[in-house]
Amino acid sequence: MRILTGIQSSGRPHLGNILGAILPAVELSKKTGNESFLFIADLHTLTSLKDGATIRANTLSIAAAWLACGLDTQHTYFYRQSKLAPYHTELLWYLSCVTPFPMLANAHSFKDKSNKLADVNAGLFTYPVLQAADILLYDANLIPVGKDQRQHIEMTRDMAGVINRLAQKDVFVIPEAEISEHVMTIPGIDGQKMSKSLNNYIDVFLPEKDLLKQIKKIVTDTTPLEDPKNPDEDITFKLYQLVASPEQIATMKANYLQGGYGYGHAKQALYEAVLVYFKEAREKFDYYMANPKEIEAKLEEGEARVKPIAEATIQRVREIFHF
Amino acid sequence: MRILTGIQSSGRPHLGNILGAILPAVELSKKTGNESFLFIADLHTLTSLKDGATIRANTLSIAAAWLACGLDTQHTYFYRQSKLAPYHTELLWYLSCVTPFPMLANAHSFKDKSNKLADVNAGLFTYPVLQAADILLYDANLIPVGKDQRQHIEMTRDMAGVINRLAQKDVFVIPEAEISEHVMTIPGIDGQKMSKSLNNYIDVFLPEKDLLKQIKKIVTDTTPLEDPKNPDEDITFKLYQLVASPEQIATMKANYLQGGYGYGHAKQALYEAVLVYFKEAREKFDYYMANPKEIEAKLEEGEARVKPIAEATIQRVREIFHF
Repeated sequence: MRILTGIQSSGRPHLGNILGAILPAVELSKKTGNESFLFIADLHTLTSLKDGATIRANTLSIAAAWLACGLDTQHTYFYRQSKLAPYHTELLWYLSCVTPFPMLANAHSFKDKSNKLADVNAGLFTYPVLQAADILLYDANLIPVGKDQRQHIEMTRDMAGVINRLAQKDVFVIPEAEISEHVMTIPGIDGQKMSKSLNNYIDVFLPEKDLLKQIKKIVTDTTPLEDPKNPDEDITFKLYQLVASPEQIATMKANYLQGGYGYGHAKQALYEAVLVYFKEAREKFDYYMANPKEIEAKLEEGEARVKPIAEATIQRVREIFHF
Repeated sequence: MRILTGIQSSGRPHLGNILGAILPAVELSKKTGNESFLFIADLHTLTSLKDGATIRANTLSIAAAWLACGLDTQHTYFYRQSKLAPYHTELLWYLSCVTPFPMLANAHSFKDKSNKLADVNAGLFTYPVLQAADILLYDANLIPVGKDQRQHIEMTRDMAGVINRLAQKDVFVIPEAEISEHVMTIPGIDGQKMSKSLNNYIDVFLPEKDLLKQIKKIVTDTTPLEDPKNPDEDITFKLYQLVASPEQIATMKANYLQGGYGYGHAKQALYEAVLVYFKEAREKFDYYMANPKEIEAKLEEGEARVKPIAEATIQRVREIFHF
């Protein structure tokens, strides 16, 4: 079973990305019989970001984060989309020629932006087609996505179907979306879903002092230190549950309920638990960031291994058109 | 000076294409100091045509026609766009990310089709961007186009300008359109502009019998054979002027004016003049069509020669994004 995941390269992954996406994907990649394709979607990044130095820096820190979280590049395909750009974009063109304009115009991702069209570039408009190319190029069977991406996988299936009917054979594998109904939603320091754009995230790869500073900014209510507190409505406790041991969680819960235990104590405990939970990851992250050539070498190895797969698919498509 | 012309691959070129486009382009390619890039735009063809066998047959007969009309492949770059597809489409993506959606939505070529959007595919919508890539990839200075294409060259200049400003250097040559104000309009057999889509064309590469049959279908008025005729309003005479010698033209004109000379005579004379005018071209065309491997070899040679140029351009663009 081939599982494919594109990794946004808009910045360094935060706690929410790591717990919600990276660790589950790394787990999935270890299951017997699974072949995982994990790629940094840096061609997609160009629809929003054009600065080369930033793109490069993002790519390195994202790759370092995945490696730090235990990704085994020997048993997965880990690569930058841009290094396979000729294959991805050639397939983009072929798929564009079988994608009705109204299908793209009706994509939620485009409709959401239809009130400020001047800010939408053609790349953003056609990105579901590039996304389809990303998937079909590697004969992926399963695409784990959020609900908001369901429509794009449907489009991918449509495009693949048109080409298969045109060729009268199975040029493409028709992929399935795997929609996690119960994706873990990690609260940010303000209680909303943790996200880069809301700037409410915790970056577990920060130096200790900066990490503690971020955790101290978690929003709390104004219950005095002495009073009992409701753990179920507190952000610090919610986050603590994600990284502490069952015993630690039980202890903190008891502390909340009996009173005499302040949010400052809880935040200090969360900080310490994060350091323990991510001890190895933080060390590995720092190691890779200090040795970018090793990151580069691992990516290049992955790129060399996916290249023949992409090449074979493009060849099958070219044959349909006698190219 | 680099001059670039894309050649539609929708079918075998007819008399209108040959006199209006092919022969002038071949002449231009022979001028000292000019480097001509002439490519068969078969990636663009996919926006309207999907049948591989037809695309392949069209490509061969178009290439045979250009070679038959005297194209010197040693001193020009003659190639199929599809064989350089990775370069064209990768640049398409980069340019897409700097092309505002409204710019494409306002293209005449798209607006003309806005009343039947279901028939428009995404490739057709973004084709001005692929066209820009076709031009910018080869550092072309001059693009001879009809008035209807002026807007697309403007878009190309815009895209190139955005990238050059982003890179703070001249990554791309900014191309100029050369709009022929007095393009020769060749009448079809019904008097309208000769065109494939109107099915009113004369195919000078047909076997003699079929060619004569086509010429006999030219529409005439009903002036009796004995009466004088107005040459200036007659399609057969207009076409004759394009292929006969000055003496022959003077003779036919006199015949028209004095009467006793029927349209059947004029059509026979036109047929004979076409055979003389295109004697060498018809022989060469038949030769190439009987020897498709020679066409293939010439195209492959051109493709090998343009490849380093395309590669160098793509490399310059990748560097902007640190890819």
